[in-house]
Amino acid sequence: MVQLVVGGAQMGPIQHADSRQVVVARMIALLEAAAARGVEMLVYPELALTTFFPRWYMEDEAEIDAFFEREMPNGATAPLFERARALGVAITFGYAELTPEGRRFNTSILTDRAGAIVGKYRKIHLPGHSEYDPERTHQHLEKRYFEPGDLGFRVWRNAGVVMGMAICNDRRWPETYRCLGLQGVELVTIGYNTPSANGQQSSEGLEKRLFHSDLSLQAGAYQNATYVVGVAKAGIEDGHPLMGGSIIVDPDGFVLARAATEEDELILAACDFDKCAFGKTTIFDFARHRRTEHYSRITAQTGMQVEV
Amino acid sequence: MVQLVVGGAQMGPIQHADSRQVVVARMIALLEAAAARGVEMLVYPELALTTFFPRWYMEDEAEIDAFFEREMPNGATAPLFERARALGVAITFGYAELTPEGRRFNTSILTDRAGAIVGKYRKIHLPGHSEYDPERTHQHLEKRYFEPGDLGFRVWRNAGVVMGMAICNDRRWPETYRCLGLQGVELVTIGYNTPSANGQQSSEGLEKRLFHSDLSLQAGAYQNATYVVGVAKAGIEDGHPLMGGSIIVDPDGFVLARAATEEDELILAACDFDKCAFGKTTIFDFARHRRTEHYSRITAQTGMQVEV
Repeated sequence: MVQLVVGGAQMGPIQHADSRQVVVARMIALLEAAAARGVEMLVYPELALTTFFPRWYMEDEAEIDAFFEREMPNGATAPLFERARALGVAITFGYAELTPEGRRFNTSILTDRAGAIVGKYRKIHLPGHSEYDPERTHQHLEKRYFEPGDLGFRVWRNAGVVMGMAICNDRRWPETYRCLGLQGVELVTIGYNTPSANGQQSSEGLEKRLFHSDLSLQAGAYQNATYVVGVAKAGIEDGHPLMGGSIIVDPDGFVLARAATEEDELILAACDFDKCAFGKTTIFDFARHRRTEHYSRITAQTGMQVEV
Repeated sequence: MVQLVVGGAQMGPIQHADSRQVVVARMIALLEAAAARGVEMLVYPELALTTFFPRWYMEDEAEIDAFFEREMPNGATAPLFERARALGVAITFGYAELTPEGRRFNTSILTDRAGAIVGKYRKIHLPGHSEYDPERTHQHLEKRYFEPGDLGFRVWRNAGVVMGMAICNDRRWPETYRCLGLQGVELVTIGYNTPSANGQQSSEGLEKRLFHSDLSLQAGAYQNATYVVGVAKAGIEDGHPLMGGSIIVDPDGFVLARAATEEDELILAACDFDKCAFGKTTIFDFARHRRTEHYSRITAQTGMQVEV
């Protein structure tokens, strides 16, 4: 029987002026609160170390690079890794990665309970756009600041559980969960920064946006018989609101825990990973039921093609 | 602007003793009620002409064939086609198809508003099993009585709308909606017969099963920016309960109409197909955002492979 207490460390806003040290201190406070409540695996948001900078159009390389990490751990984050190791808590968090070759990715890492990095993921589904768009109420320039991830969707066995990572907009794409599900994933961790308003449809409203986030996480969990944890960076950053709504979802698609605030807030659930087996061996026994001969469009065709 | 009033003709139970004529008379009554309320496109359940016979283990070919149709329309169903043409209502319904070559499929057809068949679909994701299974509380022998569909997931432009069909268990598979979404689908019609209890987990309960049906339809709609109509055959057939829960879902994933009973019952919604455009051109603009280079497992690998 594999059981693990899984936590989501929702983070309230990070202002542009906040240093990495201030942010990491908040992350450590969440970690200590989690460990005190028995959490063994803790999930932080996407781009957890800085404000959500893709909302700003920048051209100056130095200004952009200031939001990126050149190595991980680094001086600012080492205390988090050290505290996680001391407490025996596996963690995952997101950050902007600048490689030695000068490539930029929206990245997350996964550690084991000894504080060692065992997995890295680079965000594949980058939303938004790459040039300034005057028709939007706010910019979402992820396609400007990041390349699409080049590491694929992978899983790692960590603390006895098959874990996979995804980031933010990846959660809306069923391909994400299916690629992980085909590898037997039992826990999908997804950090996000999601604006509270749709920059292309201001009438949309927060309620609908929370519903879409829930719906995607719940369907991904059910249809792949896996736990899914979605963790927000939330609240008003430099005047720009981000939604909360962090949840932990079980393999039936039911929400086990939900954040109530848009601040630093811990959610947690005791997860029994044996519960993944029922779906994986019955209605979603892929080997018996999938018909890949009819799925060819999914990989052969990127965009919509209306031929009727 | 393309608008259409779409109806779901949920059907209550059909007993083994009920003739095709009795069933077709019920279907015509639903059609007339729908037309009177302005419905222009009406969706009936899977295997709409008979009781859900895959619950019984049969070996006798003649006994099996009695549940199948050798042509469509045929003598029993011609009055339905005629009435639909007279009323100008496009329809889709499911039936068990026996081909001239002796092949058996779980099939649905689509007509235009002039009563002509314009599309055919054969169910791809057959649930259940092919041999008698003493460990189940009830049998679900679709893999015994049907071959997997050989026509793929297709769309047709009908009454101005890009329509695709799926059947029952297809609705739980995101591949279904995505294959249709890649072809620009705006209305997915899905008939079903879903037992109210899980034959492999009697504790599951009706509420959870309705939730899973809703979740799958809603996620498929949202993630492909399409309307989805799910229509049940419901109630107690020959002692075996089938769940209801027919719904019409909009491209945001919201439920517009829901059946309240397990009987013959009409649901309907005025659908504005221009509402499909927003999702298809923004967050789910596949051409800009999908990364097929990372999806290869979805088509290259049928079953789960745990390699960690």
